[in-house]
Amino acid sequence: MTRADLVKQTGLARSTVAQRLDALREHELVYEAHASASTGGRPPTVLMFNQGAGVVLVADLGATHSRLVVSDLAGTQLVEMTFDMDIAEGPEQVLSTVKQHFVALLAQVDRTPADVRGIGVGVPGPVAFSRGEPVAPPIMPGWDSFSIPSWFAKDFDGPVLVDNDVNTMALGEHWTHWREHEHLLYVKIGTGIGCGIVAGRRIHRGAQGAAGDIGHVRLAGHDDVICRCGNIGCLEAVAGGRALAAKLSDLGFDASSSRDVVTLVRAGEPQAIQAVRDAGRCLGEVLAGAVNFFNPGAIVIGGDIADAHQQLLAGVREVIFQRSLPLATGDLRIVPSRLGDRAGVVGIGIMVIEHILSPEAVDRVIERGIAA
Amino acid sequence: MTRADLVKQTGLARSTVAQRLDALREHELVYEAHASASTGGRPPTVLMFNQGAGVVLVADLGATHSRLVVSDLAGTQLVEMTFDMDIAEGPEQVLSTVKQHFVALLAQVDRTPADVRGIGVGVPGPVAFSRGEPVAPPIMPGWDSFSIPSWFAKDFDGPVLVDNDVNTMALGEHWTHWREHEHLLYVKIGTGIGCGIVAGRRIHRGAQGAAGDIGHVRLAGHDDVICRCGNIGCLEAVAGGRALAAKLSDLGFDASSSRDVVTLVRAGEPQAIQAVRDAGRCLGEVLAGAVNFFNPGAIVIGGDIADAHQQLLAGVREVIFQRSLPLATGDLRIVPSRLGDRAGVVGIGIMVIEHILSPEAVDRVIERGIAA
Repeated sequence: MTRADLVKQTGLARSTVAQRLDALREHELVYEAHASASTGGRPPTVLMFNQGAGVVLVADLGATHSRLVVSDLAGTQLVEMTFDMDIAEGPEQVLSTVKQHFVALLAQVDRTPADVRGIGVGVPGPVAFSRGEPVAPPIMPGWDSFSIPSWFAKDFDGPVLVDNDVNTMALGEHWTHWREHEHLLYVKIGTGIGCGIVAGRRIHRGAQGAAGDIGHVRLAGHDDVICRCGNIGCLEAVAGGRALAAKLSDLGFDASSSRDVVTLVRAGEPQAIQAVRDAGRCLGEVLAGAVNFFNPGAIVIGGDIADAHQQLLAGVREVIFQRSLPLATGDLRIVPSRLGDRAGVVGIGIMVIEHILSPEAVDRVIERGIAA
Repeated sequence: MTRADLVKQTGLARSTVAQRLDALREHELVYEAHASASTGGRPPTVLMFNQGAGVVLVADLGATHSRLVVSDLAGTQLVEMTFDMDIAEGPEQVLSTVKQHFVALLAQVDRTPADVRGIGVGVPGPVAFSRGEPVAPPIMPGWDSFSIPSWFAKDFDGPVLVDNDVNTMALGEHWTHWREHEHLLYVKIGTGIGCGIVAGRRIHRGAQGAAGDIGHVRLAGHDDVICRCGNIGCLEAVAGGRALAAKLSDLGFDASSSRDVVTLVRAGEPQAIQAVRDAGRCLGEVLAGAVNFFNPGAIVIGGDIADAHQQLLAGVREVIFQRSLPLATGDLRIVPSRLGDRAGVVGIGIMVIEHILSPEAVDRVIERGIAA
């Protein structure tokens, strides 16, 4: 856009537009370029967004495996790495390692910590989003109420956003492949089962950041199964990766994790196939309730067990289309994740960029620039 | 605010502010008043919102009973009436009667159809909100795909918004009593069972406008009950007013409606009390899933059966607090409706006013004014 376009479109005074653009240029968020003029006259100056004005650091922390990314302000990934680390080692240990890796990655792309405009962290547990603190996360000992933003503030400027892993995966899938849909569910079926909710194109976190915890919804007809949460018949205790591995182990197979279950399915083992298909039906039972309640446009299934997605999806679809109302399922898409393992880092990056380039955040940059 | 305040706060050019205010004054949405000056000088002119610049027509149509309201642009109710009419008489018949009543109500408050700025209609069935058309509503023969906005456009200017009754009730309760909460569920338990969802302070309607249909979620342990939808074990078929009346009728009581059930509970009939408490437990089972999935800050219970709310709520609370996760229930409020029968008209009025006074709608008024 030219300056004249901006004055016309916003209705702002010419002096206001000039003042705001100066502040944005000082922060290098905007630069001037010359459009090619078709009339042969002097080409008009246009204002461009400078996506290289800074970088965003992204950490997707899993239970045992993590992924780090450095991206520019348009979400273009500059460098990526993965490494194994047990999140149960606690926040100081884990975040120190993450920081060391971040500094090394920045150097790889010729950047310094001063270039960092924001940081995003995904964790495998519930998070108080406004504070950036895990809340009683079952598989993250030592992390309860630990302020991740405060920890990073020692070394980096800019906001630090922390969210639950399934929320970031939902955001990544939605932003990349499903933006035409307003409402989407992302279901992760791995060791446990969780769900990220996109409502009105935004992550729905709920009143306490606990939304999407479908793993402990009670299934009909499974009152004999006791869950680690203390209730009976929970979805996760019947259909989660841990439950499936235990069931196959009891049948004599060598299975201790959700990945082992997928290996058996891929090997064509009928009892493993049947177990995963039954798990799909159980998941479908709970999702049928979620479809009636929430009426999403798409359900994306990811996580380890989803690598056996043909069997799983068959079971899920069978029950949802049987149990949910025709109005809610008429145009419903039920599909496997397309981003796979990378959904988390994509979503975390988008979350941070949308935050630092939001009108409110840019207004603050402008106000500081004008005041200075 | 004064004109000087507006220029300062918006950053808009003085001429732009003047032009926009002229358009708003021409539509009588804004008028000038004189603030009392503490300094003794000439009091500055302040700009005020003119809530009497027009009226809003509200129709809350029930299966057999309807309520009409005329309010000003601040939502202040000017006049109200209720009347009995079977919605199954079809849209032409029902809306003609509604229009006659509207014209009479306008005359009562010395207004004419030309004063109408917008119309809102609540109906007991699913609605395609963007088109204002009921979609395959089970108890509204003849209404499927009928354009309610087109019908009213013959006689009135301004937008016509149509929504499902539980959505409008959820909005009314939220706006009146729960605005500090971002996420709320309103559950109506009458002949059937439905749920209105407030997510991020806005109504969540879902991809097809079918969200909140919890009446057909499958309950554990009720596979012997066949629902009118063709599935088994649906919540509504076990715990709805029709089901409770049938159960009590089988036990020899004179009960054919949800109101009869409430009468028996109020008379202290133990079997009716037990039936309603059991219904509360069944509702609690489904809502426990909704609490895990959606993590609302409050659940408001309304509808006919909720008039026996002590018994019902006891059952609902018992199961939700037993089944849902502690993080999601720690601060959860589960309460009876405070607006009762009036939740619908309050919510419909707010919906229309928020629409016609939205920045986008006001911008259109201004643009037309400037263009003219």
